[in-house]
Amino acid sequence: MFLVSGGMDSAVVLAAGAREGFEPHALTVRYGQRHACELEAADRVCRAAGVADHRVVDVDLSALGGSALTGAGAVPKARAAAEIGAEVPVTYVPARNALFLTIALGWAETLGAADLFCGVTAVDYSGYPDCRPEFLRAFEQLAGKATAAGAERGVEFEVHAPLLELSKRQIVELGRDLDVDFALTHTCYDPRERNGAWLSCGACDACTLRLAGFREAGVRDPIAYL
Amino acid sequence: MFLVSGGMDSAVVLAAGAREGFEPHALTVRYGQRHACELEAADRVCRAAGVADHRVVDVDLSALGGSALTGAGAVPKARAAAEIGAEVPVTYVPARNALFLTIALGWAETLGAADLFCGVTAVDYSGYPDCRPEFLRAFEQLAGKATAAGAERGVEFEVHAPLLELSKRQIVELGRDLDVDFALTHTCYDPRERNGAWLSCGACDACTLRLAGFREAGVRDPIAYL
Repeated sequence: MFLVSGGMDSAVVLAAGAREGFEPHALTVRYGQRHACELEAADRVCRAAGVADHRVVDVDLSALGGSALTGAGAVPKARAAAEIGAEVPVTYVPARNALFLTIALGWAETLGAADLFCGVTAVDYSGYPDCRPEFLRAFEQLAGKATAAGAERGVEFEVHAPLLELSKRQIVELGRDLDVDFALTHTCYDPRERNGAWLSCGACDACTLRLAGFREAGVRDPIAYL
Repeated sequence: MFLVSGGMDSAVVLAAGAREGFEPHALTVRYGQRHACELEAADRVCRAAGVADHRVVDVDLSALGGSALTGAGAVPKARAAAEIGAEVPVTYVPARNALFLTIALGWAETLGAADLFCGVTAVDYSGYPDCRPEFLRAFEQLAGKATAAGAERGVEFEVHAPLLELSKRQIVELGRDLDVDFALTHTCYDPRERNGAWLSCGACDACTLRLAGFREAGVRDPIAYL
């Protein structure tokens, strides 16, 4: 069970898990993001990875407010990569990864699967608390109590986060080694549509971290920027 | 923060929490149930309890399958109350309470609240694993790791489940003592619409437990049955 956002991290996780022999079922959670291009990217990434079953679950979190990514607030721009992660940013969505993993857990139980893969990373984590190892371990504990599989049959759910200790540079290098087509992925928090194509802004936190990772790895980022 | 389904349990929890002085914010999760009458009941219950802010979040779990409550499977009928709870029933929705609590957690963090109220009960729990004390404690642990409030500012989230150790009979008695209007609530898994009104089947597991609770408490159940 792979959580796939359409970003470069989940594309690399999908390639890494498939190489380990895990059967790829993929889940994308549409949580009131403002950009359809993320879903288009998730679909492209899953097709390229040979995912047999890709499901999209809608959760309308915009009713609850709380983040620039789902509300009307402005996305912050033009910070240096080194400044990102020092505090919890306004693009933080409350309990987002817990929500994504919980939905994945429900589907995994239905499938009889116990392995959940996600692309969280604690190095360039942009200050999000739910991108840390202690969060993932707490979720595994919860999973054992929250499901019939865990509570009745002793299934031990495992959250795989193969990028957890990697920098963006190392993620780019791993993706390159796994032949991930980064051109299929989308990262920008604030993209613009032009002549039917989506252009990344190159200035939001997500673009800044992505571009720094490619630059440090000496790899060309194949997506289009403004 | 109160999770309100429109059933009798969450109506009693809302009344109990309001009596304790908690400011009632209420959350209903629409998760692909088959019956609009549950949402109508949640709305009625919240209005009667003086809830200032009632939000409805949509989560379409039907895409994931796995339960008679969200899929096309038949709801089981005509079991005695004493038989219910011996095994995990087909009406089990994988990880449902974890999902509801996670969404409530996200909104609570946005509001600056740390108290989550839900109507789970471990006595007549119908065999659901996520209606047990160890699940609730695991969720509190997760909440501290999943949020900026918990991970950065040390907020300790608490899941209040005041019905946890109560039988349906005791819940009816508590609701009566708190002046809960049970006529506003809806419980049935398989209701029928007739002349614009919803009639409960009186035979599904939920109806069977509800009716037994009222009968044992010596209280008349004011809702309409087939």
